[in-house]
Amino acid sequence: MENKGRILLMKGIKLESIGYVVTKAVGREVRDRSNISKIVLIPDLVEALEGLEDFSHIFVIFWMHEIVGENRRMTKVHPRGRREIPRIGIFGTRTPFRRNPIGLTLVELLEVKENILVVRGLDAFNNTPVLDIKPFDPWDVVEDAKVPEWWMRLERERSRKTS
Amino acid sequence: MENKGRILLMKGIKLESIGYVVTKAVGREVRDRSNISKIVLIPDLVEALEGLEDFSHIFVIFWMHEIVGENRRMTKVHPRGRREIPRIGIFGTRTPFRRNPIGLTLVELLEVKENILVVRGLDAFNNTPVLDIKPFDPWDVVEDAKVPEWWMRLERERSRKTS
Repeated sequence: MENKGRILLMKGIKLESIGYVVTKAVGREVRDRSNISKIVLIPDLVEALEGLEDFSHIFVIFWMHEIVGENRRMTKVHPRGRREIPRIGIFGTRTPFRRNPIGLTLVELLEVKENILVVRGLDAFNNTPVLDIKPFDPWDVVEDAKVPEWWMRLERERSRKTS
Repeated sequence: MENKGRILLMKGIKLESIGYVVTKAVGREVRDRSNISKIVLIPDLVEALEGLEDFSHIFVIFWMHEIVGENRRMTKVHPRGRREIPRIGIFGTRTPFRRNPIGLTLVELLEVKENILVVRGLDAFNNTPVLDIKPFDPWDVVEDAKVPEWWMRLERERSRKTS
């Protein structure tokens, strides 16, 4: 820990991947929520997965290893790359361009077979390193969450496209 | 990337904290969902927070820096430390004893004031390094999630205590 002015910072936090993503989806296809992927974990972790199959949904925490250099230093982006929406701070979006490019996605757990998880809805590219798996807990539900106007607008647009 | 047998692994993934938690709660008190904490971010990040205040809820991703050594090598635990519940794999629980001790908590965002966020419901200790902040997105909601029997049992018990 380093005390930088009034700010305590911790540098060089080290993680290791516990496995990786396998998917045939490329580019924007990974955003398709019906997309089925595999997560191949280190074989030693089979015991650590016992009981996970009793949950229908899990959070996958992954490392967006292609985001490096300047792409980790951005401060504002157009939400979902839409240039007609004014730029907002990266922490107000789910952009991959973050200080620590950690991905977080809630997915449906379809199967656990030894060290392999089969999931639906993971928006991570093939070979993405996986950092952690956490069961989805109904405590994570917020029913009356407030979101910005731009979010609602994109959502209405998306509904029109899929209906 | 290292190809270890059939497993692609990535070692030495490096992160830096973007800020830290300030709370008066100690020990088990941090689990109280009404607990109010501050997240003090690096002052340079003020611009990167613009627009976050339009969300009512955010995910806080933090680094449980006190979990080191053998505590990162456990495979099974009693859920929530309850010895009467059989041990299950760490990935089937939200235990801090994980390969990569990353904490993930959905909190209510009460205020954004320059580089400081005021939140309710963060179960992280004082001085915990923060890795990322993501807005809660209604897409993260699952209404019909299935959970294990032990989870339901603890939930019923908790409801009895608080009612």
